[in-house]
Amino acid sequence: MRQIGIGILGLGNVGSGVMKLLGDNAEAIRARLGSEIVVRRILVRDADKPRLVSVDPALVVTDARAILDDPEVRIVVELIGGEDTARDLTLSAFRRGKHVVTANKAMLAVYGQEIFDAAEKQGVDIYYEASVAGGVPLLRALREGLASDRVDEILGIVNGTSNFILSKMADEGRSFAEVLAEAQAGGFAEADPTLDVEGIDAAHKLSILVSLCFGKTLRMDEIVREGISHVAPVDFQMADRNGCVIKPLVLARAGETSIEARVHPAMISKRSMLAAVGGVYNAVCVSSYALGSSMYYGRGAGMMPTAVAVVSDIIEVARDVLGQSAGALPLRLQRSFPRERTVRDPGDFQCRYYFRFTAPDRFGVAAEITQALGEYGVPLAEVTQLGRNADGHAVTVVVRTFDARERNVKAALETLARSPNASAPPRMLRIFE
Amino acid sequence: MRQIGIGILGLGNVGSGVMKLLGDNAEAIRARLGSEIVVRRILVRDADKPRLVSVDPALVVTDARAILDDPEVRIVVELIGGEDTARDLTLSAFRRGKHVVTANKAMLAVYGQEIFDAAEKQGVDIYYEASVAGGVPLLRALREGLASDRVDEILGIVNGTSNFILSKMADEGRSFAEVLAEAQAGGFAEADPTLDVEGIDAAHKLSILVSLCFGKTLRMDEIVREGISHVAPVDFQMADRNGCVIKPLVLARAGETSIEARVHPAMISKRSMLAAVGGVYNAVCVSSYALGSSMYYGRGAGMMPTAVAVVSDIIEVARDVLGQSAGALPLRLQRSFPRERTVRDPGDFQCRYYFRFTAPDRFGVAAEITQALGEYGVPLAEVTQLGRNADGHAVTVVVRTFDARERNVKAALETLARSPNASAPPRMLRIFE
Repeated sequence: MRQIGIGILGLGNVGSGVMKLLGDNAEAIRARLGSEIVVRRILVRDADKPRLVSVDPALVVTDARAILDDPEVRIVVELIGGEDTARDLTLSAFRRGKHVVTANKAMLAVYGQEIFDAAEKQGVDIYYEASVAGGVPLLRALREGLASDRVDEILGIVNGTSNFILSKMADEGRSFAEVLAEAQAGGFAEADPTLDVEGIDAAHKLSILVSLCFGKTLRMDEIVREGISHVAPVDFQMADRNGCVIKPLVLARAGETSIEARVHPAMISKRSMLAAVGGVYNAVCVSSYALGSSMYYGRGAGMMPTAVAVVSDIIEVARDVLGQSAGALPLRLQRSFPRERTVRDPGDFQCRYYFRFTAPDRFGVAAEITQALGEYGVPLAEVTQLGRNADGHAVTVVVRTFDARERNVKAALETLARSPNASAPPRMLRIFE
Repeated sequence: MRQIGIGILGLGNVGSGVMKLLGDNAEAIRARLGSEIVVRRILVRDADKPRLVSVDPALVVTDARAILDDPEVRIVVELIGGEDTARDLTLSAFRRGKHVVTANKAMLAVYGQEIFDAAEKQGVDIYYEASVAGGVPLLRALREGLASDRVDEILGIVNGTSNFILSKMADEGRSFAEVLAEAQAGGFAEADPTLDVEGIDAAHKLSILVSLCFGKTLRMDEIVREGISHVAPVDFQMADRNGCVIKPLVLARAGETSIEARVHPAMISKRSMLAAVGGVYNAVCVSSYALGSSMYYGRGAGMMPTAVAVVSDIIEVARDVLGQSAGALPLRLQRSFPRERTVRDPGDFQCRYYFRFTAPDRFGVAAEITQALGEYGVPLAEVTQLGRNADGHAVTVVVRTFDARERNVKAALETLARSPNASAPPRMLRIFE
């Protein structure tokens, strides 16, 4: 039986999952492929560190050249994460005619175009299913399942940590700080949670989706991005009252001449499919010209779910290698978007808005809010003061608007933030229909 | 630019959608493929019949040989439906070295194994994404996205007509007959709705999924099948009271030694992802060893959604043809299920049950029901008489059980059906957790 040699860069969580899955499902994979996938080398930083899986010590190397220079390694599996070293190793692998499978969203968000161009030039495969939505075969669906269609919009939940935290806050009525601390203790959030809770990880993934679906490479600063740390228990109560839940969303839309990409929490109807996506799950709704709405749902992170995407990619590249068609005929998605579209001014964005204002319980506050909204042409739907505070201490006033432009809402909020009545900065959430 | 000639068998709803999509997205498809897909011939029964799309009359033929014998036709797109003629044409295409794309679930459910074997023997491609869940790229997800994993269970909604009828019954509190008539008038149900409402279409699709995921070819009579025509408005009320909705489900599970496959409506929790799937949408939840739960959702029927799957398959085969790898390296999924598993006795199935019994409002009815359940070892959770009827006329009594074996529940129901108190046959629904 023919063998396909692979080299794995990195033996952390995902690398361990890949080793485990290759072992556990070895028989089925061999039968499906008609060939054997053989791990020839594994790159680690510290050869003596304890691992989640036991591997043959003879396979372990600490110098990447042992993998890059091994002619028996046909596929390099890049699982070290980070941006620059991963990019250098990927490009080196390409130059040696090796195909690459990666789970690295940060690298692709920053160096994607360079990497895709280099792969095409070298005639090698680059697969990266694990970089978005973990084990959910979303990129395959977009690339091949919808190869005949035209994607117009993507709306999804692609960061499991944020979704876990917001789901738990909604279920238990607790604060962000409390739930985050518990998630960190339970291993559901990193010690430094910034990448997840500030939407950076989600923006990396959205950038990959935009590149695949709309053929446009976005800089990170072209993606509107807000984290979830300002969402408070009262916001969930107000969402619930309006038939909504709060979810950490990514949204990208392509029009005739412009593209927009956003990462932020928003209120969405309880009846929408995304509302039912709880805990660490991911889901992406795709709107396309001929198919209409479709959705892809599953575990977006974790050792074994991510390993499914990586190993399925390895199998796909192995088939290409065996069929001698690797790198030969990629779907040239990027060539199918001929029109150069600009990034839409974020201020043009339009939806309904919710915001929360903290001010003393006295006459004139509602008037100040309604006046600020009126001044900037933001149509008011409802203003609600939540309870009373007889001592003139601060109370919360929440506001819902009808459809408004984001620049007008932000201008009104800035005016309110400067008000002597404001005892805390106003906090805003978008309401998606 | 290189051209790939295709021949289309059938210009009904789906065939028209394929022609429209190939036209509307021609530029993008050409850019993605780096080649052009050219329709060389279209087979119709009646060349003079008015069509949903306008096609060049020179392309239209009424004899399949004009397509099968055209050496320029590399891919035959089978869209005539039905079983025997479609099979004959598919096998003829294979013998001439042509690849086949089909949307025909009935043909694959009945002749699947023969067709897959013939394709492998001839070294040609057979793609059939449109046969299950319409435009949703579900088969790609199962075949390639989960190539590294092992599917254990499939639970889904794959018949849009049944889901549309049950969704409307739930929303409007109306009877099956009324909603069916309205669906027929609106074009959402066929004049003869049997295939859809009796679960035959769903069973065809389930059979394809079982073959793909578990490597087993089922006869239609090995699939437990019940339609939706006996579901009544009161059942929705009782479901709602228990936090459930009623959905037309397909379920398949593979254990170590046996496989089970079922098509029937069931009560499922409102909190489950499938509960949010309304109208004509399809969704399939997949449980697999390493990924866990994943779900694929979208339009399961209709001219354009189905065309997305067919044309994406055409693009995939065209890539294989251009890369000279067509038919060469299919994933040999069926070889990865070495153990010969039997079909599980349907009586072994275990879940909670709900049933509805119609009997006169008099003492002794509840005793009779509880006695029958006790006799067959079916644990009672709740018995509820819905209102009173002073004249001794019939009232409805509904029953929920704890986990029970299907054979025991059926035996108890048969006993009750023979009771002189029974004024109509008892109707049963399963409750899935």
